[in-house]
Amino acid sequence: MSGFHHVVALAGGVGGSRLAQGLALALPNDALTVVVNTGDDLVHVGLSVCPDLDTLMYTLGGMGDRERGWGLRDESFRAMEMLGRYGGPTWFSLGDRDLGTHLARTMLLAAGATLTEVTARLCESVGVRTRLLPMSDGARKTIIETTEGERLPFQDWLVGRRAVPRVRSVKRVGDGVATLAVLDALEAADLVVLCPSNPYVSIDPILELPGVRERVARKRVVALSPIVGGKAVKGPLGTMIPDLAGVPASAAAIVAHYAGLLSALVVEHGDAQGITLPSLETRTVMGDEHDRERLARELLTFAATLP
Amino acid sequence: MSGFHHVVALAGGVGGSRLAQGLALALPNDALTVVVNTGDDLVHVGLSVCPDLDTLMYTLGGMGDRERGWGLRDESFRAMEMLGRYGGPTWFSLGDRDLGTHLARTMLLAAGATLTEVTARLCESVGVRTRLLPMSDGARKTIIETTEGERLPFQDWLVGRRAVPRVRSVKRVGDGVATLAVLDALEAADLVVLCPSNPYVSIDPILELPGVRERVARKRVVALSPIVGGKAVKGPLGTMIPDLAGVPASAAAIVAHYAGLLSALVVEHGDAQGITLPSLETRTVMGDEHDRERLARELLTFAATLP
Repeated sequence: MSGFHHVVALAGGVGGSRLAQGLALALPNDALTVVVNTGDDLVHVGLSVCPDLDTLMYTLGGMGDRERGWGLRDESFRAMEMLGRYGGPTWFSLGDRDLGTHLARTMLLAAGATLTEVTARLCESVGVRTRLLPMSDGARKTIIETTEGERLPFQDWLVGRRAVPRVRSVKRVGDGVATLAVLDALEAADLVVLCPSNPYVSIDPILELPGVRERVARKRVVALSPIVGGKAVKGPLGTMIPDLAGVPASAAAIVAHYAGLLSALVVEHGDAQGITLPSLETRTVMGDEHDRERLARELLTFAATLP
Repeated sequence: MSGFHHVVALAGGVGGSRLAQGLALALPNDALTVVVNTGDDLVHVGLSVCPDLDTLMYTLGGMGDRERGWGLRDESFRAMEMLGRYGGPTWFSLGDRDLGTHLARTMLLAAGATLTEVTARLCESVGVRTRLLPMSDGARKTIIETTEGERLPFQDWLVGRRAVPRVRSVKRVGDGVATLAVLDALEAADLVVLCPSNPYVSIDPILELPGVRERVARKRVVALSPIVGGKAVKGPLGTMIPDLAGVPASAAAIVAHYAGLLSALVVEHGDAQGITLPSLETRTVMGDEHDRERLARELLTFAATLP
């Protein structure tokens, strides 16, 4: 065993879900809590859509589409095709099976359940035994301010505009606070893992919530770098780092971004240059479940050696 | 041509849609308005569902499933399967393509459009050129009171309880009024056709709206009997007539129900017995589009002979 009794992982979507799945396979169910970014959440076609929570639930439930990285395996898009015939919005594609998730969530929220409660219920229904916690039950949204001065909700920028407009800054709007469940999980943690998600739009939204950063800072914190060989494994991070930090994308830039929060870093072979923190170089681009578990075990073993 | 310049058909779901399609094929687009029952409408899984309007739109658009009589052809039910995994309600089945319709309608209503406007827009999108008017833009719902004293919204009784509980009475709740478009269409009509829909739960809800019955009563009114050989072609009407009127189901019972409103009746061969109104006996159980058009033309020709 890893020696850790309560690991809290902070995660966004695709990259985060891969390491989270590895951790879930490497740890007993009651030794892992995954705190998930909800800054990308949106009400789309009248439904409450939580892209990162869904990616986590589908991945941990073994239901995710591995090719796309998001959404369900064996998916169809017939409702959206029909909605498109009526001139409805189709830029954010929701699969038919996926719609079942959004319908269930929207109904439960309308009935008064919190997002934390809804997430627990949905996860239980599909057999996900790892505890997934939305970072907030309130509204706290990521806004992308582009160099042309546009202010776009994150998914509008990422999906609607294909992440083409350059980013001037990343803002948050809304007063959502961290749930007590999140704060309690962090209090109880003996290790915090920052998953290889985009720091600006997946991890920072969690860290910025009042009470979160100071609780994380009191713990042993290990990050897995989302930058491999100077490039993002997935998503727009590769251009966001130079646009926002003015430095090339690198594992060192990730360390600099988290400014003193990290105890150590796990990076790809050869990516530790310029990093003075304790670091583990290994193979970090994750393949199947076994590979994810392998990496999670290496990370946990490494974390246990830290002072 | 039929000689009629403005035919208004009152219709419910399956049977109504078949004659309405025949009339649409037999008449120029601008010579037909179909006023559709909305007493069965429901908000289901958070979406605005209008079973009769959908059946009319799908049938007139040539998109309907002919076997089932409702819903779309080539349909799948994957969203509902997924919703079922979460413990969500699946008793009222919505197809994946069908969900596109409900999502579009719900979004447009939320944006402030009336149901009349939404219906026009949806119909235009799928190429339905016949004017379909919901009877009301407001809430006016059919409630089934059972002999055990339950009060069930119509679809809860019909679909949720498979029409098993016997009916003591049919009530309406809600203050919805007829739209001006409906009242104006009736004013302008030179023929009103009562489609072969259930009088109690499809046609009466329309006739009961303030201003409708007196306008219909001033017109030439021809009904097509939904009872053939003592049985309902489809649906629960066969037992509702004895339960509610205390007489056997028959074309004569339909005439009695409409109490003085009808100018004439079209019935199945052999079904005119006990009817003193002018009546046309013909083949009334409709098959494909051609058969529906054939029957509509016979009805129109017959109606033109009435004094």
